[in-house]
Amino acid sequence: MSKASDVWEQADRFVLDNDEFLVVSHLHPDGDAIGSTLAVGFILKALGKRYVMVNESPVPQKFRFLPGVEDILSPEEVQAREKPFRRAIAVDAADADRMGITWNLLGSDADILNIDHHPTNDRFGTVNVIDSDAAATAEILCLWADRLQVTWDRDLASCLYTGLLTDTGGFRYSNTTPKVMALASRLLRCGVDASGIADRALETMTREQIALVRRALDSLSFSEDGRIGWMWLKREDFQETGADEEELDGIVNYARNVVGVDVGILFRETEEGTVKASFRSREMVDVGKLAQSFGGGGHARAAGCSLSESGEKVERAVLEQVTRALQGGGS
Amino acid sequence: MSKASDVWEQADRFVLDNDEFLVVSHLHPDGDAIGSTLAVGFILKALGKRYVMVNESPVPQKFRFLPGVEDILSPEEVQAREKPFRRAIAVDAADADRMGITWNLLGSDADILNIDHHPTNDRFGTVNVIDSDAAATAEILCLWADRLQVTWDRDLASCLYTGLLTDTGGFRYSNTTPKVMALASRLLRCGVDASGIADRALETMTREQIALVRRALDSLSFSEDGRIGWMWLKREDFQETGADEEELDGIVNYARNVVGVDVGILFRETEEGTVKASFRSREMVDVGKLAQSFGGGGHARAAGCSLSESGEKVERAVLEQVTRALQGGGS
Repeated sequence: MSKASDVWEQADRFVLDNDEFLVVSHLHPDGDAIGSTLAVGFILKALGKRYVMVNESPVPQKFRFLPGVEDILSPEEVQAREKPFRRAIAVDAADADRMGITWNLLGSDADILNIDHHPTNDRFGTVNVIDSDAAATAEILCLWADRLQVTWDRDLASCLYTGLLTDTGGFRYSNTTPKVMALASRLLRCGVDASGIADRALETMTREQIALVRRALDSLSFSEDGRIGWMWLKREDFQETGADEEELDGIVNYARNVVGVDVGILFRETEEGTVKASFRSREMVDVGKLAQSFGGGGHARAAGCSLSESGEKVERAVLEQVTRALQGGGS
Repeated sequence: MSKASDVWEQADRFVLDNDEFLVVSHLHPDGDAIGSTLAVGFILKALGKRYVMVNESPVPQKFRFLPGVEDILSPEEVQAREKPFRRAIAVDAADADRMGITWNLLGSDADILNIDHHPTNDRFGTVNVIDSDAAATAEILCLWADRLQVTWDRDLASCLYTGLLTDTGGFRYSNTTPKVMALASRLLRCGVDASGIADRALETMTREQIALVRRALDSLSFSEDGRIGWMWLKREDFQETGADEEELDGIVNYARNVVGVDVGILFRETEEGTVKASFRSREMVDVGKLAQSFGGGGHARAAGCSLSESGEKVERAVLEQVTRALQGGGS
């Protein structure tokens, strides 16, 4: 029943009235998770608060250039030196499970400030600042820093910019709003290195990733009408290239980006012998619904699911469903 | 000796005091050339002026979604129905040669308004509005539309946005300034479809292009220290994939984007039997100077040259030169 302004005041009080915080985000963190974790750290630092930043997963190589990133600890490192925390600030995490085992670092009576932009956020916090109109959690934090009268210095601005940049797919997704661009402009005025960050966060690829792209492209097939494009990565593709899951980032887009394709799919065999399918769509098909029909989930334009049948069966079943969806026969 | 404000006034008078204009840009047009051509068209239309837009080269497929693009004529189409023009507005063209044969559509006494952001612009116009601090010619046109009190409607804004977007490499190059982002924000407020334009102008690939990427990646090699990455595209790669020169766009970046690489090179055989080398660099090497030493040219981070020796010799000579440049022994 609380109004938005009340929630913001609660969020302000949460940090102003307390002294020590655990800052957490989701496992397998992306640029917004890492950028927002660090940004909250810089905000707390500016306010003279004590805090510990943690993530169950290591920070991906491409975000290790960010200022303060060496202070994001593993749960083991935190556990070895701290008592359970009584206050946590969770950023970009749609539910408590997404925080992984960092959850165990909290006391049973811990209060949580939950700041997120996912529409599916289940409001697991004591205070919940959820703005699903925001392109990124970093966008919400821009406003919060202003409310708390924290100056956007270059370090803070670089972390916020990274969140905006990555969650809008480099200002390419439909969440690229006038507000996002106005915030980006203001962040750049703080001395952010736009091209350096874009280079590291979006452009740089490992040799293993290049090898994986080659193999994925080798497998690219199209439906007769050209509206479905799909690729396969088998277990041996990972073994022989030395690539890991983290390096799959963006590969599915090659299938979607081809002229005439409406739905792009990447099938990949996991170590457990299941098949994961990632979907990207242009306009016609709600792949979120499609993935749901296979027990998965996601958004209308990007989704995925996991299937335990053989590759051939999975491919046939998925392609049939996509074809039906393209014919307007449901998703 | 004229001050900047005088030049702007001359530009304003150029359109306000005359009635009919030929709008031209450079051949093999990119997003800024097409976007700026169309933007000038919309500005002239708003001012109630008559104009004809022309380009020697066809509009690349990926920009054919832009409003008004069907009104960009070929020189032949213009010649068939118009007398020589007495006034031309040239956009994004660093010198008159870049306009190709559209030059022939001008009367011998024609006045030219030359609007451009290339620092190498040779001021071939009667009035020259050259701002090398602008990220794109479209950035200059944003200001000009304001000066002329032309409202940014959705069509004009979409063309200007396309110029900004493409000339900053999707807001990834070092010319991505706070001003660019502020203009982008204002353009999006006019109803521009940011994701639709990014999708068409930056993401979409032809099947031929995908096939070319595969072949280029198959040839990717690295120097022993990993600081040089290079790829080859032979004549048969073009013949067998059906790809053309236009579809090379961006492929060289795969070599540069690999972790540890400082200079990425794409060698390709042309139909005439020469070898063209494209260079991209991260930080260490001024590839503009490097290309110059082989009779080519370009910028510090992106350049190219053409060589008439055999592939093997070219590769050896270029790699030796790049190695020397990396060792600080000149470019």
